[in-house]
Amino acid sequence: MNKYIYELELKVRDYECDLQGIVNNANYQHYIEHTRHEFLLSAGISFAYLHQQQIDPVVARITMDFKTPLKSGDCFISKLYIKKEGIKYIFYQDLFRSSDLKIVLKSKVETVCVINGRLGHSELLDKTLSPYILNEL
Amino acid sequence: MNKYIYELELKVRDYECDLQGIVNNANYQHYIEHTRHEFLLSAGISFAYLHQQQIDPVVARITMDFKTPLKSGDCFISKLYIKKEGIKYIFYQDLFRSSDLKIVLKSKVETVCVINGRLGHSELLDKTLSPYILNEL
Amino acid sequence: MNKYIYELELKVRDYECDLQGIVNNANYQHYIEHTRHEFLLSAGISFAYLHQQQIDPVVARITMDFKTPLKSGDCFISKLYIKKEGIKYIFYQDLFRSSDLKIVLKSKVETVCVINGRLGHSELLDKTLSPYILNEL
Amino acid sequence: MNKYIYELELKVRDYECDLQGIVNNANYQHYIEHTRHEFLLSAGISFAYLHQQQIDPVVARITMDFKTPLKSGDCFISKLYIKKEGIKYIFYQDLFRSSDLKIVLKSKVETVCVINGRLGHSELLDKTLSPYILNEL
Repeated sequence: MNKYIYELELKVRDYECDLQGIVNNANYQHYIEHTRHEFLLSAGISFAYLHQQQIDPVVARITMDFKTPLKSGDCFISKLYIKKEGIKYIFYQDLFRSSDLKIVLKSKVETVCVINGRLGHSELLDKTLSPYILNEL
Repeated sequence: MNKYIYELELKVRDYECDLQGIVNNANYQHYIEHTRHEFLLSAGISFAYLHQQQIDPVVARITMDFKTPLKSGDCFISKLYIKKEGIKYIFYQDLFRSSDLKIVLKSKVETVCVINGRLGHSELLDKTLSPYILNEL
Repeated sequence: MNKYIYELELKVRDYECDLQGIVNNANYQHYIEHTRHEFLLSAGISFAYLHQQQIDPVVARITMDFKTPLKSGDCFISKLYIKKEGIKYIFYQDLFRSSDLKIVLKSKVETVCVINGRLGHSELLDKTLSPYILNEL
Repeated sequence: MNKYIYELELKVRDYECDLQGIVNNANYQHYIEHTRHEFLLSAGISFAYLHQQQIDPVVARITMDFKTPLKSGDCFISKLYIKKEGIKYIFYQDLFRSSDLKIVLKSKVETVCVINGRLGHSELLDKTLSPYILNEL
């Protein structure tokens, strides 16, 4: 079964590679953040707009398994699916190298919502994301 | 007359914006570096491959005029043309906001070639770039 | 008991903050990577030297708990201790805000060693790190 | 004569180096921005505070001459002096490698002030910076 509900193809930029000649690990966080924000946009809300409304989704916990390093010139597909646990939205975000679909990164990003400086529920966010939540039997 | 010989459309990523809510200036250097490297690829050579051959194009001088700040959600077109002056390749690189073609950045990037650690001419680079040089009357 | 065997004080740089006005999450990975590399240097080996010897420590897995966001102007102390499990060196890396010692980030970074492109043991690394390993009863 | 009115010592972080093994050019912009903001703090105002007051100093033009590349492990001294021309504050910012004081970067950063979205004078900024302006005969 294909759990993924959103995907985006990206390409490594040379400045993202470090002296080992591979993408520096911190850039994978950039890739998956950008994917979440593009997913939000596709669902109708912008991260910058949320911030202006004093609604700030923040990452509480992140786990990343680095499987295959990306190199200069590589394209990759960034995919995600979402679960909800209590007040947390949990994004499962995996990257695959385009050339052979080899897994590059497996990650789990647990987010909470800060509203006017306090943890809380955002109705706007809940309403926007509810069609996309994976409910397992 | 359209001098540009290469263009690439890109989109602002939210992590590129800083606390002023606009793209941090250093990222414009990333955008134009990425454009040069993609241009090189389109012309048949990769920056990483050049480095493996001990041929390192380096930037000697850069001038950037910041005209209109890019914001979260903006798409933009990155264009370039090239002149040659002595041993220098000079890239003229301009960015335009996609929505209204307003000029975002005007820049001039003067590059030289370091071969095995010394300034020099790369025949490979000269041969590859020569069809693209703008020769003004 | 104080498990930490290395610490480094750092300060937030404004370009590390994003449009939410807080340090962008990916920069915490930069902070803890920089701390590991400075720790290695203090123990007598440089990351760049290792790479030249074809010894590349790489991160296999990272877990980060974001506790308190850092802001423009904040100083923080980056601390680490190390355990060894099989071929893995596991770095426990925590950040504390200097002003009140509030915990900012708790992280666990599991690293392995790639030698000439294959997973392996580096005697140099083992010898250098052995005095620093935390052995729990 | 020593024109410089502020200096800050910094150290290269490995993630700032790219696949050429030297500091990626865009990071020099980070170094000099951080130096300006630290200078402002030393003079009594914070960049984040200015933004909250709707006073946003922005860079209109930047020129950088890259003289000697910094590498992993290098320390460097970032120095600046300031001139005023019309509504522009012009920061002259040079970097020197600590080990031998070799010049790394010469740069000129022309800044203007955006107040509530329009170009303007900030009395706060003028008053704070006036003791530091270099007036040449």
